[in-house]
This record gives sequence, structure tokens and C-alpha cells, in this order.
Amino acid sequence: MSRKNAEAQFRLLREEWGDKGIDLDAVSRKCMELRIETPSWAYANCGTRFGLVKDPAAPRNAYEKLSDGAQVHRFTGITPAVAVHVLWDNVPDWADLQKHAVSQGIRIGAINPNLFTEPQYKFGSICNADPKVRRAAVDNMKNSVDIGRQVGSNLLSLWFADGTNYPGQGDFRRRKAWMEQCLADVYAHMPKSMRMLVEYKFFEPAFYHTDIADWGISTLLTKKLGERAQVLVDLGHHAHATNIPWIVSTLITEGKLGGFHFNDRKYADDDLTTGCMNPYELFLIFNELVAGMEDPSLKTDFAFMIDEMPVIKPRIESMIQSAVNLQEAYAKALLVDRAKLSEAQDDNRIIDAEEVIRAAWTADVKPILEVGRMRKGLDPDPLGAYRKSGYYAKTLKERSIPETSRRTTKKRMQKV
Amino acid sequence: MSRKNAEAQFRLLREEWGDKGIDLDAVSRKCMELRIETPSWAYANCGTRFGLVKDPAAPRNAYEKLSDGAQVHRFTGITPAVAVHVLWDNVPDWADLQKHAVSQGIRIGAINPNLFTEPQYKFGSICNADPKVRRAAVDNMKNSVDIGRQVGSNLLSLWFADGTNYPGQGDFRRRKAWMEQCLADVYAHMPKSMRMLVEYKFFEPAFYHTDIADWGISTLLTKKLGERAQVLVDLGHHAHATNIPWIVSTLITEGKLGGFHFNDRKYADDDLTTGCMNPYELFLIFNELVAGMEDPSLKTDFAFMIDEMPVIKPRIESMIQSAVNLQEAYAKALLVDRAKLSEAQDDNRIIDAEEVIRAAWTADVKPILEVGRMRKGLDPDPLGAYRKSGYYAKTLKERSIPETSRRTTKKRMQKV
Amino acid sequence: MSRKNAEAQFRLLREEWGDKGIDLDAVSRKCMELRIETPSWAYANCGTRFGLVKDPAAPRNAYEKLSDGAQVHRFTGITPAVAVHVLWDNVPDWADLQKHAVSQGIRIGAINPNLFTEPQYKFGSICNADPKVRRAAVDNMKNSVDIGRQVGSNLLSLWFADGTNYPGQGDFRRRKAWMEQCLADVYAHMPKSMRMLVEYKFFEPAFYHTDIADWGISTLLTKKLGERAQVLVDLGHHAHATNIPWIVSTLITEGKLGGFHFNDRKYADDDLTTGCMNPYELFLIFNELVAGMEDPSLKTDFAFMIDEMPVIKPRIESMIQSAVNLQEAYAKALLVDRAKLSEAQDDNRIIDAEEVIRAAWTADVKPILEVGRMRKGLDPDPLGAYRKSGYYAKTLKERSIPETSRRTTKKRMQKV
Amino acid sequence: MSRKNAEAQFRLLREEWGDKGIDLDAVSRKCMELRIETPSWAYANCGTRFGLVKDPAAPRNAYEKLSDGAQVHRFTGITPAVAVHVLWDNVPDWADLQKHAVSQGIRIGAINPNLFTEPQYKFGSICNADPKVRRAAVDNMKNSVDIGRQVGSNLLSLWFADGTNYPGQGDFRRRKAWMEQCLADVYAHMPKSMRMLVEYKFFEPAFYHTDIADWGISTLLTKKLGERAQVLVDLGHHAHATNIPWIVSTLITEGKLGGFHFNDRKYADDDLTTGCMNPYELFLIFNELVAGMEDPSLKTDFAFMIDEMPVIKPRIESMIQSAVNLQEAYAKALLVDRAKLSEAQDDNRIIDAEEVIRAAWTADVKPILEVGRMRKGLDPDPLGAYRKSGYYAKTLKERSIPETSRRTTKKRMQKV
Repeated sequence: MSRKNAEAQFRLLREEWGDKGIDLDAVSRKCMELRIETPSWAYANCGTRFGLVKDPAAPRNAYEKLSDGAQVHRFTGITPAVAVHVLWDNVPDWADLQKHAVSQGIRIGAINPNLFTEPQYKFGSICNADPKVRRAAVDNMKNSVDIGRQVGSNLLSLWFADGTNYPGQGDFRRRKAWMEQCLADVYAHMPKSMRMLVEYKFFEPAFYHTDIADWGISTLLTKKLGERAQVLVDLGHHAHATNIPWIVSTLITEGKLGGFHFNDRKYADDDLTTGCMNPYELFLIFNELVAGMEDPSLKTDFAFMIDEMPVIKPRIESMIQSAVNLQEAYAKALLVDRAKLSEAQDDNRIIDAEEVIRAAWTADVKPILEVGRMRKGLDPDPLGAYRKSGYYAKTLKERSIPETSRRTTKKRMQKV
Repeated sequence: MSRKNAEAQFRLLREEWGDKGIDLDAVSRKCMELRIETPSWAYANCGTRFGLVKDPAAPRNAYEKLSDGAQVHRFTGITPAVAVHVLWDNVPDWADLQKHAVSQGIRIGAINPNLFTEPQYKFGSICNADPKVRRAAVDNMKNSVDIGRQVGSNLLSLWFADGTNYPGQGDFRRRKAWMEQCLADVYAHMPKSMRMLVEYKFFEPAFYHTDIADWGISTLLTKKLGERAQVLVDLGHHAHATNIPWIVSTLITEGKLGGFHFNDRKYADDDLTTGCMNPYELFLIFNELVAGMEDPSLKTDFAFMIDEMPVIKPRIESMIQSAVNLQEAYAKALLVDRAKLSEAQDDNRIIDAEEVIRAAWTADVKPILEVGRMRKGLDPDPLGAYRKSGYYAKTLKERSIPETSRRTTKKRMQKV
Repeated sequence: MSRKNAEAQFRLLREEWGDKGIDLDAVSRKCMELRIETPSWAYANCGTRFGLVKDPAAPRNAYEKLSDGAQVHRFTGITPAVAVHVLWDNVPDWADLQKHAVSQGIRIGAINPNLFTEPQYKFGSICNADPKVRRAAVDNMKNSVDIGRQVGSNLLSLWFADGTNYPGQGDFRRRKAWMEQCLADVYAHMPKSMRMLVEYKFFEPAFYHTDIADWGISTLLTKKLGERAQVLVDLGHHAHATNIPWIVSTLITEGKLGGFHFNDRKYADDDLTTGCMNPYELFLIFNELVAGMEDPSLKTDFAFMIDEMPVIKPRIESMIQSAVNLQEAYAKALLVDRAKLSEAQDDNRIIDAEEVIRAAWTADVKPILEVGRMRKGLDPDPLGAYRKSGYYAKTLKERSIPETSRRTTKKRMQKV
Repeated sequence: MSRKNAEAQFRLLREEWGDKGIDLDAVSRKCMELRIETPSWAYANCGTRFGLVKDPAAPRNAYEKLSDGAQVHRFTGITPAVAVHVLWDNVPDWADLQKHAVSQGIRIGAINPNLFTEPQYKFGSICNADPKVRRAAVDNMKNSVDIGRQVGSNLLSLWFADGTNYPGQGDFRRRKAWMEQCLADVYAHMPKSMRMLVEYKFFEPAFYHTDIADWGISTLLTKKLGERAQVLVDLGHHAHATNIPWIVSTLITEGKLGGFHFNDRKYADDDLTTGCMNPYELFLIFNELVAGMEDPSLKTDFAFMIDEMPVIKPRIESMIQSAVNLQEAYAKALLVDRAKLSEAQDDNRIIDAEEVIRAAWTADVKPILEVGRMRKGLDPDPLGAYRKSGYYAKTLKERSIPETSRRTTKKRMQKV
């Protein structure tokens, strides 16, 4: 779509929605103020348990991952931070990595300690029967807190692979007590400015039980820890048919919604492009978020993060798709006529309430986002613009050279 | 199996398990001390949404339901109470109904207010946008509290059909606030001796969202209410693959496990005979219960209730099967060598831990239960003994006569 | 949206899509040629297993159901037939009922024998161990064939509730043999012009096994029967996460896709408004249908039918929503640029292929449908127009009078 | 349990079951005649997508894998073959590998071509849009056929990772046509003595659609291929709640049940020890198998294979557990009183039928298997006996030495 048509369509829509009391200029502006982190690990080679899919242009270290992440922000304008994984992204000097990020127009986002890759975690981390392993896990998390301090990140994002594969393998009650103690230790170590997000996951890599399996246990844990501990909702981490918008709403009322790991899935957790399978559900989640954000009686501060492993898709392109899909869901949620909705709900007029939701859902929001981008000096088509930029070809060439022969990286590596 | 063989087999097993430090006489005795309520509604005609299945011997009123429930206790010795449903079991004089129960060797158990059958509940009860309906629901529950006082029942068992069928239909946050207020009103009305059990259900009859959908929300609600509010776990009310033993264990650590609605299912909630589909899971649940009950640091008081709709099975026989299956699961859980299990867990010896569990699980517990029954003066085979009793034929004859022509019932009905 | 704006928007879209080689006038016309049957049972009072929801304006007999069905066609223009249920819709003179339908501007659609409501079917129909019941079921179906002949319907639509609730209850192999024999008997009875559609369902009302549980067994059965036996896909009858578009495509290649029962669901089968939960999936199904219909090498003739129980929604309004949602899905599927899609697929360019699909999916099709309706002389807003028509108020008044006092109905009933 | 007690218990049981017309000596003998293949890949290091779990005693090549597999047979007596994976188990001389197997008391079982690990299969194998890849896949399978000829294996076991991750990525209909052509090519290449088993899988590693997703498509494909093509049922490859015993029974009636990949799971496919999660379901599957095998009108020849990735369990011990669990399920299925079951089924006496099944299920079969093992000169406790054998310690020592320094292996590797 050319820029000119977008403007024309936008004007038509602005008139139409203006009549309903919705200010499309404001919607467009808000959509450009959306802030989503992308994950450093999405830019690296990844795969399934059946094998790794290799891209010759894949980044070879944390610096290159951040450079890739910067491209997504360059074209979408809404992804100014990249979450890092302590272990996979380890560098000798985190402040230097942050400097690199800033030089690319972004910054380091949430700090994610890795508590599952090393052999010591074979039987779990903070729920491991071995106290030495639990201590190592706590130290690992405290180290991540310190990295956060160094780079100015206020988000400690925790996911635990802890669980068991067979009935009898673990004592659920003792494991819970260990977990609570370990988390309390880490919480006490955090600066006042930092939030701890506790992620839950229905299953995997544990296949009989998972110690933090659902929003219920995450909520109980974070309530015991304190105000700066909140729940992280990963869209792929639920049993089939679970009503995620309801969980989101419930967490908001409890002051415990800390943030999201966005992605999509059809079967089990599988890190597909956000919004690729059930875009309506994504919109309904944003509908709850916007309702919460617009309620002055509520304190809301949600950390939006994408957590995906593109596997067979070009990685940067997949991130752009996800960011755009999120922006579309947000735009539609901003179009919901909340007063009309409330009235219909009050009267139990089901179809009227549903039609309010669907009017926003079926709205054509592309012109709104295109105009928003253009007003920020961006190309209206982020994916197309990225493709035209030649970034992939450039990195393909650079990164097919063995890393150690590159001067800059070499220098950085010497510091390790 | 004849009584003589049971005794012989029991002696062999007693020797074998005695060597492992397990006292089978105690196990046998404990199994006879198990207490399970059966539900009055299981004895009535029931069906699916595709139609009602009618039994000409089905009870025609609450009195006859209690008489049927008494049969299950007569032959199993472990089901001395029948839970009642306020509306379906309404009688003019609840004290008289309790007298009838006692005359049959049982008593009235948990009080279950009905908050979904009447047309006013079409759009919900305590989450209904209409304050008049919410008030009616609260009054209804308070009335059940009063009935509990009258008949000496200390359990108020609450299940709400509240939810929505379509996105937008309801405001999740307002509904939650209404719900909390209504429950607080009822809680305040309960005598100190009474406990409130709040049941959760993944879905149905609401098909988009359910206001109390999982153990997480039930736990949050009951924590806000107070100590005498606890969670009720219905085995059929979870998403597929949910680890129920882990939920049970978690609730125990939080002091929030109030009781159970036992049943089984393969697909969605469907009220099959307890233990008929996944007997191993039932055993693993009892494994957590026994572990909790044997821990002196924990306060445990679990209300065990069956909640099933036999539909196409003979109703009393189905209840006997369920009670026996529960008793078998309990017996096996009592055989778990907990010291050996803990040691294996401490060392992360997975297979050893699992083999401890499986040694109990694969044990032959029939002789243990047979001997237990005989020592209580019961027939070792409850199902066979019930069938031989002629009770069904007797009620078939009585109940095929139109109810109003029967003198006793007539008299009772006159009181209404 | 006023008619004038719709035309203006349509012209803009026609230009845009015309550039891509898509003729929006043709799309608009095709969308008005879509033919969907609505089910007579959707207009009657219905409920869940927890209770019936009653509407005082609900039709009291088959004549009134057809009158209601005619309203949906009157405002959508795409639902000219109503499927009937032999038993619930029984009338003394089916030809007279058809005459009534025609007088209302519609006709009788698929004939659905009822093989589950009567007590004799307690343990199944064509899989019942009792040969008398199997014979009754066959006679019942043959009677439906004869009714089809009478009213000129060429579709015999079969759904069986057959299955078991408990392991051991039935002999799977013998049941399959009985089923094959019974279906062959009925098939032989059909006139050459008639098609038999065999529906499958994952579960319910049987809760351990269902004899026709999936598309696999339906396909095997219909292959054995002959060319005029085909599979009926009910959208709500699958395990979670099942890829229905793939099943649809597979059935098309095998010449075995006979038709659909449209509806939606989030959990188990529950008869929600078509397209209300996962509209993207509905579009992807139509994407396969259109691809099949546009392939000249394939013989396609799909019977589109809605099968829903609105329960708490106004019934006629719910049917209008479903019909419109189906039309939107079809419109979007017609916008897919198939040549471009094939090229991207040939090159394994995943994102390009996906973007072709999403370009159609996110298109604004409302103006296309509005224009289509107006060109047919219909109101562009079927739901709004129906509401304004006063039909509900009229029937509410009529139907609150006991049926027998109404002259017309009385006359008809005298014929019984 | 000592051997002496086992004999004593067996005699008691023999008397009890003899009265019911079941010959326990025959049951015991049949259980020792059970033949199950274990998979070479279960002995190697394996993991989840979150990481590999390494065992220092893990086999370093196909020779060592077969040696490990031989241990399972040595102690269970029922696993005389090891399935191999062409690629992971590649050796310069397959006949030499077979000689090695025979020297260890076993043989090579089913041949499994690998069609997913190499980069060329990134977008699929026989459903890949690229004809060169499809040809490579066919050649790969033909090569496996030839290896089968060489080592005297008559089973070609096929699993395809083919599928798509995103809507639009692939053309379902063209993919099906390619698949049918490729399979026909391979089928034509097989010697008359060889069978092709076509495995299905609900999902993974493809996350939107899988080309062979269920038993339905496997059955259609194998029917088109011919008599020597049959379906392979992997227990972990179904949607939740799918009734596998019914699928097994249906495949038997169609002559299409080729064999099994045994394992267990609670959530998605995850390769847990067979029988560890739902032992009752495993028994119900064997109940169908035994019923089929005992029916003289049916031709049955089932290939029983375990397919598991023990991950965190000691690998050989886990295989022994699986083999024993399978043997127990088989033993119980042999105890079902089929005449009594049929009578109850004929009369729709549900509870009686179920009780026949449960009488077999709850039977204590350990003494039967212990006696069977002893009569074959084996230790009654395979797991204990293996642990005492010192095999693990021996291989740990041997395999911690870098492989190339070992003379024998070196020699073999020189042949490559």
C-alpha cells in the first residue's frame, strides 16, 4: 500500500470512528508509544528437540544479537529493548554490551538468568533436593540482579525448568518450601527499583509435574514475596482452552500482572510468531489490558516481551511480524467502545456486548498504523522496508567469516 | 472370593509387608475408618444434555434418596452421610429428613445450595450484573447455612455455574468484585463450626469463561474470606493433563484443601464412576493425602465426597463401585514406604523412588479390605451382597406406584 | 454504516484489489450465492445438561420453527433451507410442512433421523448389542429416506450417539460390524439422487468410546458404502488443537467431503455461534474449500449447514450472526491470491506464503458484503434489519397463547 | 521377593484362576514368549530441546548401543531385537553389526530411516515442495530397505517429520499427492517378505499441521499401497483423551495394525517409561490385542517396539522397567474371562462387563511373571539382577576412554 492511500483511508476511518467518539489520531499515537522487548535468543540459531536449524547469518555473540534486535526497532519503532539471557549472552563486560546496544539505538531489557542448561541442574534448580545446587541457583540469580544494576535494567525475569518426570521422583511439599526460601533470598537482594517476574509453565521440560505450573502458584509465591514480585504470563504456557484474557484480568485486579512473554501456539508450547494462530485471542487479551490501563483506580505497569524461537522462519522478519501483530491487537483494543460495552453488560444484552467487541475486532487498523509510522518518520511497511535494507545480505557476508578473524569481536573476546 | 481364602491371603500379605515395617492390621482398620459422603443427586434419575435416562426404581423425593444412600453405607460401611442439594431435595422439615436419615443408619452431609437451575440465574448468580439476582443468590446460600444449623451439618459446599458464553458478555473485573462481596456476606453468616468449601470448574455450563475456573482463584478467594473457607477439588473439573496430585499437595501446604468431589472422566467433566478411567491417578492423589495426614506439622481435615451422575449404570451399584475404588486407592497409599521414598528423593534416585510408589500401587489390597469388612461384620463383597439383598426389586415395586398414593410420603408432602 | 458509505468504501477496495487481479464485483456476487442451511432445532428452546433456557417466543412446532428459519433467510439472503430432525419435527404430513416452508420463501433441507432420544437407544442404536434395537434404528433411518423423497430433500444427515461409558461395556469389533451392516441397509434404500452424510464426534454423550469418533472412521465407512456416502464435518467435534483445515483438505482429495455442521467452541462441543471463538480458523477452513472449489480437477459439492444451540442468546439473532460470520470467512477466502501463494509455497518462502493468507484475512470485507446485499435488494445490516422488523414481538404475542387455541395450528394438529 | 515365595504365591493363584477356567501355566509361558524390540536410540545420550543430558557410560556407536540392548534381553528374556536408526547408527558394514548383535544374544530389528536430521529436510522430506529433496528421501528409504535385506530384517518403520508451522506455508493437497507417490516408490522397492509400517503423530516437530497426523491418514495411505503396508501406533502420538484401545481394535478389523511404538506421556509426546503414567490404558490396549489374537478369523502379526528417550533416567534400567510393565499388561489381558465378558456385553450389563475387566486388571501378576522367568532360567527380578551384574560400572570405565584409542572400535572405524 502506498503512503498516499494510507492517508486517504485513514481520513475516512477517522471520520467514521470520530462519530463514535473514538479519536483515531490518539489511537495512532498510542500505538507508536507501545513498547515491546524482543529476546536476544530469538536471533540465534535455534531448533526443536529433533535438531537445530542453522542460519549462516545467525549472530555469533551477544553483540551481534543486539545488532539484530536493533533492526526490528529501526523498522517498527516499538521494540527499543532486547531481553538478555545470562549464560547464553555472557560477556566479559555488561556495561560495554549496554554501550553497544545504545549505539544501535536500543538498550538491554529484562535480565533472564539461565537455570536449566548446566549439568548441575539435571534434577532442577531451586527445587533440587541437593542444597548445593539450590545455593548455586540463588547465586546465579543474584548475579543477574547485579548485572541488572550494572546495565540499568529493572526487570529480573525468572523461569524455572524445575519439575519431575515420574510419580514419586520428588516431594512436592518440600520442593515448594525450598522454592519459597530461594526466591525470598533473591528478592531480598534486589534493589528497590527492580521487579521480579515469576513465569509459570504448564509443562516441559518436566513431564510429570512442574513446580510453577500455573498462574495460581505464581500468584501465591509473589504475594508472599512482596509488592515488587509479580507474575509473568507466557501465552504458550497454558493447558488447551484456558481462558487467558480472564487470567490477565484476574491478575490485574490482584496487582500481580507483571508482564508477558508473547508468542503463539496451536499444540503445546512452541514459540510461533505472536498472533499467527489465534489473533482473536490476542486481541481479547489486549482488550483486558487496555480496560485495565484505562481504569484510574488501578496501578498498571506491564512489561511486554516477545519470547519466540523462529526455528524455520527468517529470525528478524519473524520478530517484525510479531511486533506488528501485537500493534494491531493493541490498536483494535483501543477501538472498543467501553461505555457502550458496559451498558450492554449491565443489561445482559449478550449480542450487543459481543457486537461492540467485534466492531473493534473487525475494524481495518492497517491505515491507522501506517499513518502512525509515517508520522514518526518510519516506512509504513516495516517488513518490506527491512527486506529492502540489505541488512541480511550484509550480515550473511560478515558472519560467514570465522568470528575470531574479525577485529572488533576479537578485541572483545580478549577481555573474557 | 470366599471369606476363608481372603483370611489366608491376608496372613501371607501381612507377613510380607510386616517385613517392610508396614502393619497390615492397622491398614485394614484405617481403611474401614475412611468416611465418604455420597450425593443425594446420584440416586435420582439423571442424564446428559441429550436426554434423561429413567429408572422406574428411582427415588421420588429426598426421603427415598436418603434411603438409597443408606444402602451404600450398609454394604461398604464407609459412607455414613449423604450430601443434599437445596432445591432438588427441598422438604418442608429438614429436621424430619435428618431423623429419617438417622433411622436408616446415616446422616445428612454437606449442604449444597442450588444457584443455577432457576430462570433468574440464566446469566449467573453471584456474578450476575443484576443486583437483585446477586441478592437472591446470597439469601439462597444463607438459607443453606441455616439448614446446616438445623440438621447439624458443618459443611457448606458451593459450586457456581457463573460464567459467560461469548467474549464481551461480562466484565471480568466487576464480576470478581461482586463475587467477593457475596461470598463475604455468606461467610459472615456462617456459625463458627461451619466450613465453606469453594469448588472450581474449568468450564461448563459456561463456555467462554468461568468465574471460578481453577484452584488458583478458589485459593485467592478463600484466603480473603478466612480460615473456615477452603477449596473443594472436583476431580473432573480440570483441563486435560493437569497434575491433580500436585494441586492437592499445594493446597495442603497452604491449609486450603477442604475436600473433594470424587468422580472420573476421560474427556470433559462427565461424572463417571470414581477410579474407572485412571485408577493410578486416584492412587497418586491419595498418596499426597496420606503423606499430608501423616505429617504432624500439618492440620488436615478433608471432606471426602463423591459427586457423580451414574446415568446409564444402576445407581446404587455405581456408588458402591466408587466407594470401593476409593478404599482401594487409600489402602495402597497406606502401603507406601515413606522413609525409603524420602531417601531416594533426597539422592535424586528416580527409579528407586518410583519403584517405592509402584510397589504400593501394584500390591494386592483386596484381601486387606475383605478382612477389614469381615472384622466389622460386613460381607467382604459389598456389590454382591447388595445385589443379593433384594433392595432394588423391593423399591422397583414400591416406586412404580404413583407417589401420592403412598401414605408416608403423602403425609410428608402435606406438610409442604 | 449507511448504504452510501458502503458503496464508497467498496469502490476504493475494488480499485485496490483489482490491481492484484481480484474482481470484487465477482466476490460480492459469489458471497450472495453462498447457501447455508440452518437447523430447525436452533429455533426451539434448548439448554445444557444443567437446565433448559426457555424463551416465551420459542416455536411450538415444526411449522413455527420453519417460520423462524425463514426470517434468517429474509435478512441474510443466504439461508434458504432449514434442516429438520425426524422426531422433534414430526408432523402428520411432511409435504404440507414443505408447502409451508415454500410459502415462507424457504424449503426443507437435510433430513436428520433421531437415534438417541427414545429409551430404546439407552445403550446405542446401530451398535446396540440388541438386534431389535438395531433394526428399529435402520427402520427409523429408512423412514427418513422416505421423508426426504416426499419433500424433495437429497441429504440424509446421520449422527449416532453410539458409544460406551466404561471399559469393557462394549465389544468394539462386533459393534463396528453391526454398524457397517446397518449403514449398508440404509444406503441401499436411498434413491440415486440422495446422499448420505456420516458425521463423527470425538465424544459425548458417550464418555469412554464413541463408535464414529473421527474423520478416519467416517471415511472408512463411507468408502465401503459407495460414492453417495460422504463425511460430515462438525466443527465442534474434534480433540483440542486438531487441524480441521487439513482434515477438510484431505477429505476433498478423497472425494469424501460431504458437508459441514458449522458452530464454534472453546472447550468441548458446545454449540456456540459460528466464528465467535476462532474466526481465523473458520477462514482457514474456507480457504481450503475455495481452493478445492476452484480446482477444475475436483468434483466438489459441499452441504453447508449450521448446527448450534444458542441457549442463552436470542435464537434468530444468533443464526443471523452465524450466517454473516460464515459469509465473511468465505469472502476473505475468495480474496486469497492463489497464484502468488503457490509460488511462495514452491520456494518454501514461509513468510511470503503466510503474508498472502494474512492479506486476505485482514482485509475489510464488510463493504463487499453490504454492497452484495444491497444489490440483491436486502438491507446491508441483516441483524439490525431483523431487529427493526418486529418479528420477535409479534411471535412473542402469538406464542404465549396456548398453541391449541390457534386456529391454523389446530387444524394441522387435527391431521395427526 | 524370594523365588520360594513366588512359587508359593503362584500355586495359590493357579488354583484360584484355574477355577475360573484360566490356565496360569499357559499364561506364564505366553508372557515369556512376548517379543518386544528396544530402540538403539534409547541407549544413547538424549535430551529435550532445553539441553542434552549426558551419561559418561553412554554408548559411543552402534556396536555399543547393541551391547546395551543385549543387557535388557539378558535379564528380561523378552527383548531379543534392537531397532536401528539409519544415520545415527550408520556403520560401514551392517552385516558385521548384525554379527555383533548375534554374538550378544540378540539381533537387529526394524530399520528406521532418518528423514529429518539433515539440513535438506528443513522444510520436509516426502512432502517437500522441492523434488530433489523428495527424491533424496526416497533414496534414503530404499537404502534402508537394502539394509533390511542385508541384515535379514523384515520391518521398514517410517516416521516423517513433515508438516508446516504456519497457515499458508504448504499446499495440503499437493503434499499429499507427493507423499503418496514417494511411498509407492519405496513400497515397490521392498522384497515380498518385508512390511512397511507408517507411523502417525499428532504434532511436532511441525506445529501447524502434520502430513501424517492420525491413524485415519495412515490407514488411507497404507490401503492404497497394499497388504504389506500397515499402520504403526505410537502411544504418545495422539490428542489428549483419544481412545487408543478403540483405534487399535479398529485397525485390527481392517487388517492394518502393523505394530507399536510403546512409551507413555502425561502432556505432549515425551518418551516416558511405558506404563508409567496410565497403566490401566496400557492394559486396555493389550486387552484389545489379546482379543484380536485369540480370534481365529483374524490375521494378526503385531510388531511390538519400545520408543522412548529416557533423558534423566538410567537408560538400560528404564528399558527394563518398560519391558516389565508391558509384560504385566499382557499378563493381565490374558486373564480376562472373554466368554463371561461377551455374555455381559450381549445383555448390556455394564457393571458386570466392567467387573470382568477389573478382575483381570487388579489381579496380582507378579508371581506369574516371576515363575515364568525362573522357568526360563532367569532371575525373577530383572532390574535387581541387572544392577547386581556390574555392567554399568564396567561400561562407565570402558567408555570414559576416548573411543579412538580402543583397538576394536578403531578397527571398525577404519572400515568406514
